[in-house]
Amino acid sequence: MTGTLYVIGIGPGDPELLTLKAVKILRDVPCIFFPKGKEEGISLARSVVEGVIDLSQKELYELHFPMAKKQGNKFSRELTERWDEIGSAITGILAQGKDAAFLTLGDPCIYSTYFYIHGLLQKGSRIQIEIIPGISSINLAFSKIEQPMALADEAFVVIPAAYWESFEPLLANFHTIVFMKVHKVFYQLRELLSQKGLLRNAWYVSKLGMKGERIIADLREVTDEDLNYFSMVILKGRKDE
Amino acid sequence: MTGTLYVIGIGPGDPELLTLKAVKILRDVPCIFFPKGKEEGISLARSVVEGVIDLSQKELYELHFPMAKKQGNKFSRELTERWDEIGSAITGILAQGKDAAFLTLGDPCIYSTYFYIHGLLQKGSRIQIEIIPGISSINLAFSKIEQPMALADEAFVVIPAAYWESFEPLLANFHTIVFMKVHKVFYQLRELLSQKGLLRNAWYVSKLGMKGERIIADLREVTDEDLNYFSMVILKGRKDE
Repeated sequence: MTGTLYVIGIGPGDPELLTLKAVKILRDVPCIFFPKGKEEGISLARSVVEGVIDLSQKELYELHFPMAKKQGNKFSRELTERWDEIGSAITGILAQGKDAAFLTLGDPCIYSTYFYIHGLLQKGSRIQIEIIPGISSINLAFSKIEQPMALADEAFVVIPAAYWESFEPLLANFHTIVFMKVHKVFYQLRELLSQKGLLRNAWYVSKLGMKGERIIADLREVTDEDLNYFSMVILKGRKDE
Repeated sequence: MTGTLYVIGIGPGDPELLTLKAVKILRDVPCIFFPKGKEEGISLARSVVEGVIDLSQKELYELHFPMAKKQGNKFSRELTERWDEIGSAITGILAQGKDAAFLTLGDPCIYSTYFYIHGLLQKGSRIQIEIIPGISSINLAFSKIEQPMALADEAFVVIPAAYWESFEPLLANFHTIVFMKVHKVFYQLRELLSQKGLLRNAWYVSKLGMKGERIIADLREVTDEDLNYFSMVILKGRKDE
């Protein structure tokens, strides 16, 4: 019997935002896979789970996921080979009949690296996969700024900030826009919001639920030190006003 | 000392999708507010929490929230008066120095009735409010169909189905579209997706995490019996394909 792979969203960083289901599975499984972005770094996911679960009796595997960058419309061969390796490593352990958990920060379905290997794991193997949703940093961000993502007939859109050139047509159609990973284009975005008179409708948040959390209601106060990978700008539109 | 109001997202229906934080607060607070949509109905939120928390020693308050329908661009006077009443009831209890939890299904910031009273609670009172995010039915839906909401440079949009006339321009710009509460326009939407050759890119899901859960990968199999308020259609776009 092949084991089951539980793909678990562990939330944005606060161990208290784990679900009961996540904790129960993590207590039960003998193996846990911790993805991490940099080969030498400590897995952030691991530090979250260690706050709640005793890991001393588990088999732990750190998996290095390189940043996924496309070359034109395709991923590099180096990258797809690495995903193949990771997929084989996971399949090999499950083939021993052990259940395992694969951790993702936030929710497994929102910008998580897990889906780069999902197709590989499904293909030609008899692995059972169950995905457990988690609190995403987007959900936490709106809780912290005390604003609805959407109410009644409103619509919202989430876009990676690299996509922000399309900002102007979006503004006419959506009540709420979430610009993800905004650090590299923050100053251009702030300038545009300023020109449009929208600075009062925007929030900057970063590292939510982690050490160094920042929630800045006035974008003019954001400086270089506040900018990092775990950043977003939330814009509440003025439609209907 | 006025009490603190904890606005808690309890997830989509499965008690196991409560967070550790939600459970801890629910155990600690002496009072719980259960909103419900129909005066005579049983609070769905209550049945979720009863799966995990002993409510026998708590003060429980059921709050009837009528459906929020706008008259033109405004809410009816009857509705805003009802919200005022609810706001006063909550403020009155917190003024006794008691902490309380206000439950919302899913996440408090995604289409929850709570935000109709948030402004009232903040206004002129010294209530402390803390919002605790929850797993939304949207997050659960993508976990169940094993699809990413977004990966890498992709963007996604969530719209109430009443808004679906704008569907065609959206399709060119977003990888993923979630049509919320789709029951009233389901057949028109299905026809449009069929005409566009997009039936294979869509899923119908309803009552996720509740009794009667339905996940239908082929929209042609959906019948009247499957349609209800807790429904959505997920469309994965063909951009980049």
